[in-house]
Amino acid sequence: MTADVEAANAEFYAAFEALDLDRMAAVWADDPGISCVHAGWPMLRGRAEVMRSWALIMANTPYIQFVLTDVTVQVRGEHAVVTCGENILTADDESGTGFLAAGSVVATNLFVRADGEWRLWLHHGSPVLNQIGDDEE
Amino acid sequence: MTADVEAANAEFYAAFEALDLDRMAAVWADDPGISCVHAGWPMLRGRAEVMRSWALIMANTPYIQFVLTDVTVQVRGEHAVVTCGENILTADDESGTGFLAAGSVVATNLFVRADGEWRLWLHHGSPVLNQIGDDEE
Repeated sequence: MTADVEAANAEFYAAFEALDLDRMAAVWADDPGISCVHAGWPMLRGRAEVMRSWALIMANTPYIQFVLTDVTVQVRGEHAVVTCGENILTADDESGTGFLAAGSVVATNLFVRADGEWRLWLHHGSPVLNQIGDDEE
Repeated sequence: MTADVEAANAEFYAAFEALDLDRMAAVWADDPGISCVHAGWPMLRGRAEVMRSWALIMANTPYIQFVLTDVTVQVRGEHAVVTCGENILTADDESGTGFLAAGSVVATNLFVRADGEWRLWLHHGSPVLNQIGDDEE
């Protein structure tokens, strides 16, 4: 069960790395109740708004790669919560060839099981701006 | 049912506004699986780490007030997801009397029902850094 959720979570990041909007659409639950926060973005709600954001992001991302850390999976009945760190290597259109930016994001991914499949219900990513204990230095 | 979840969510923010650590401790599920992301922070996991962060934040916050926007509650069995915007008015110790800072955060709050009570299982807050459509301007 936990392995199935881990696989669904991995497919979410694989679909993003592949910049494949159809794969990304299949990751998400087919439900108007889904919501998504891209790191630094406002809350997006509903399948139309969420998928439009992925189309926009993929169109502006020539390359992205994730290394996940501290992946924790909690399965509770038909719901599963995955929390993880996303260590991101990316390029954007404006940076020109060869330039890569790196970033650190923490993510909460909530999956629900429907018809035996784990589908993404909510993604909340946020930039890590403070390290604990650094704020007084 | 939705009203009970809304009340639990309101109590989370009321406990923070009251800077009352005991009330905050009662809001959270008594479970090692809880996790919390304060806006801009890394992921904190487990009751000890989460409650230590609240003690630290409350000790450094002389005043904080929330106006919540777009509160959406979804109840699914023993789980409930609340998403909302937090419009924050705050002061910190270093700013001196009379200075207030304002900020905009989006939050995901996941509640679970145990013994008839809705308790907070996961809080994920993140700063809103980009407004959609502004990135090309």
